[in-house]
Amino acid sequence: MEPQSVPRIDQQLAFLVEADKLKNVLRRTTLTDGSRHENTAEHSWHLALTAMVLQEYASSPVNLPKVLRMLVVHDVVEIDAGDTFAYDAAGNATKEARERRAADRIFGLLPADLAAELRSLWEEFDAAATPEARFANAVDRIQPFLQNRETGGGTWHTHNLSRDQVLARMDPVRTALPQLWPTILNTIDKFFAKPSG
Amino acid sequence: MEPQSVPRIDQQLAFLVEADKLKNVLRRTTLTDGSRHENTAEHSWHLALTAMVLQEYASSPVNLPKVLRMLVVHDVVEIDAGDTFAYDAAGNATKEARERRAADRIFGLLPADLAAELRSLWEEFDAAATPEARFANAVDRIQPFLQNRETGGGTWHTHNLSRDQVLARMDPVRTALPQLWPTILNTIDKFFAKPSG
Repeated sequence: MEPQSVPRIDQQLAFLVEADKLKNVLRRTTLTDGSRHENTAEHSWHLALTAMVLQEYASSPVNLPKVLRMLVVHDVVEIDAGDTFAYDAAGNATKEARERRAADRIFGLLPADLAAELRSLWEEFDAAATPEARFANAVDRIQPFLQNRETGGGTWHTHNLSRDQVLARMDPVRTALPQLWPTILNTIDKFFAKPSG
Repeated sequence: MEPQSVPRIDQQLAFLVEADKLKNVLRRTTLTDGSRHENTAEHSWHLALTAMVLQEYASSPVNLPKVLRMLVVHDVVEIDAGDTFAYDAAGNATKEARERRAADRIFGLLPADLAAELRSLWEEFDAAATPEARFANAVDRIQPFLQNRETGGGTWHTHNLSRDQVLARMDPVRTALPQLWPTILNTIDKFFAKPSG
């Protein structure tokens, strides 16, 4: 109970060991080959790669290094809080409190300066108020979109979602990476063939 | 066979879909709970987090954004080339040629400018000649080291490695993050108790 007595380096290594648990947090989305559910650690890696490859489409200039750092830590709280399915209203009602407690514990394993730095990246992502956070949030929609597109609808199909639900979920892409929107709309339209109007 | 005829954005999305396969490439290392083998995608995420948390120990100043971008792409070639176990002499003899062919195909899915950018990050990592690449390579030793430490020796045990083999493998840490070396040496010494001299 005296964090100061644990050497700084051991606090850092303990956090990195704890982070391994994110590989056991499963998301609703499956891999594109449908073989299994995706976990949050590999999802986070895929988002970082997506940000690197699609950064040119950001509607506001973004600081890519910050986007990458944000994406690496943005889901670490799921070690305790679990993955809350985007379309789970009940789960999302308690998500904020669960994730805040998780952040206290997990980032709290780190020395105070690093804990503050990583927590602030996570909070910035969640607030979605800066260009970097808006771009990162859009990337967090595009990657599962691609997984769903490659698996005949994926969670749209297995969870019986409506076109409006999917459109609302994907909306951050429309403003953060507008040049991707026609591709996304086209896929959604095909899947929900044929929307009214 | 006319890459120019595929819209740029579709080339980028095709690469991101292909990248999903890295989640099915298994490494020798297991998760710290021993439940299963680690895959290369989640390993790459863990390395990025490790770099963020341990950057202060770099013996030469490093450009963290470049380190992160390097770590995100450094193992993408394993989609075709597979993970070559660090201590597999026969596998390592053919690794370079296999990975070069993989890089041609996988980065080749991207528009030429992005292909060149990502390939160059991968080549820089592999050459281990810049401060960023040396730091990234050391991080690529530290993360499996922690997994092994947490699982009673991990691959050191299951593959019956010698202390000299493990020390040689970990050596990049000694020079790139010297302040970590005592911790690493201590763990190795305990595991191989008791070295001569």
